[in-house]
Amino acid sequence: MKRVDELLVTAREEGPPEFGPDFRASLLDLLKWRRDVRRFKPTPLPAGMIDRLIAIACLSPSVGLSEPWRFAIVDDKERRAAIRACFEECNRDALRMQTPDRAALYARLKLAGLDDAPCQIAVFADRSTAQGAGLGRLTMPEALDYSVAISIHTLWLAARAEGIGLGWVSILDPKRIAVILDVPEHWVFIGYLCLGYPVAEDDRPALEREGWERRHPPAKAMLYR
Amino acid sequence: MKRVDELLVTAREEGPPEFGPDFRASLLDLLKWRRDVRRFKPTPLPAGMIDRLIAIACLSPSVGLSEPWRFAIVDDKERRAAIRACFEECNRDALRMQTPDRAALYARLKLAGLDDAPCQIAVFADRSTAQGAGLGRLTMPEALDYSVAISIHTLWLAARAEGIGLGWVSILDPKRIAVILDVPEHWVFIGYLCLGYPVAEDDRPALEREGWERRHPPAKAMLYR
Repeated sequence: MKRVDELLVTAREEGPPEFGPDFRASLLDLLKWRRDVRRFKPTPLPAGMIDRLIAIACLSPSVGLSEPWRFAIVDDKERRAAIRACFEECNRDALRMQTPDRAALYARLKLAGLDDAPCQIAVFADRSTAQGAGLGRLTMPEALDYSVAISIHTLWLAARAEGIGLGWVSILDPKRIAVILDVPEHWVFIGYLCLGYPVAEDDRPALEREGWERRHPPAKAMLYR
Repeated sequence: MKRVDELLVTAREEGPPEFGPDFRASLLDLLKWRRDVRRFKPTPLPAGMIDRLIAIACLSPSVGLSEPWRFAIVDDKERRAAIRACFEECNRDALRMQTPDRAALYARLKLAGLDDAPCQIAVFADRSTAQGAGLGRLTMPEALDYSVAISIHTLWLAARAEGIGLGWVSILDPKRIAVILDVPEHWVFIGYLCLGYPVAEDDRPALEREGWERRHPPAKAMLYR
């Protein structure tokens, strides 16, 4: 495994890489088999893996090159327990919002992996960063948050390519997470990530397998103007 | 090129794919050479390419399997001109916000590719979608927008793997774009994408090459809790 600070160094003399049909087919496989994982083996991640995955995530695009992503690696038992309690409470509230026929199914879904996941990362957007000098953010300050969401996706794909699963927990109170983790005031909570080796691999989303929702044809999401 | 509706079909009997070191190295190259492209050749994209890229984007994760992404393919000359005018105005405002020493550099940056890009797509989040039955959205409704930002990233990577460049324009007034493109009321504008074959390829962000901003070491974005 390369050292993290070597990741950004490219041998420029080689010129731009060529991506052929084999790579494109594997990339498509990666996208198809990237799942939102909620069941993890207890096996810890190899030493240095988190640093590596976060370094790769930092290759993501960001508005104005602001790099607003902040990764809080959560190991402390008490903080983890507080986050778990926050999930339990928000999940109970969400359960109450479901129709009776849906509530039973909702209650059966495993929506977090907080007990099992050996590695947990809370990801924030630093809305106050001066980096990028505000470029691209005047009319759309939320573009900072989108950059961070994309960095999570990059981390997700890099993890899956290592056989590591990721689950993104959003059934949480963003303000409470910021307090539990004692982060600076202008950091906006984007997502809580559980990482570890998955109990099972699949090319269908768990929510589809469990009968919660199904995917729709791409054509339904397209229009012409 | 496979038909779009074949993209989602996986031969399940093959089992999960194995991703080896060669694929991981190519994936890293893809992430390093994915640029925010602003200079395009006039060459149109091959027939069917947009459908294919959007179908791949639809493989992205979405909160509660809500698939809230909506892709408006913008071909109409008058609408394109109106969007260009919107960019010009927002860009002038943004220029005025820069300090005098920065303003000269800002004015030199090419921040859109709206004149050259043969393909242009406005991407929205349908905040009113019933799909997913609200799962994961009660405490964080903005998770819908994050799903859409991630679908743009997927499209971006798939395009780059085909040698196609993408530029994400955010110097726009979201409400005005929604009016120009006459989209449903609850659609939130996420980004405007310019696609085409790039004039040049690089592994360094244009903003870094132009001296606007530089990337920082990943360790600066990490903390432990």
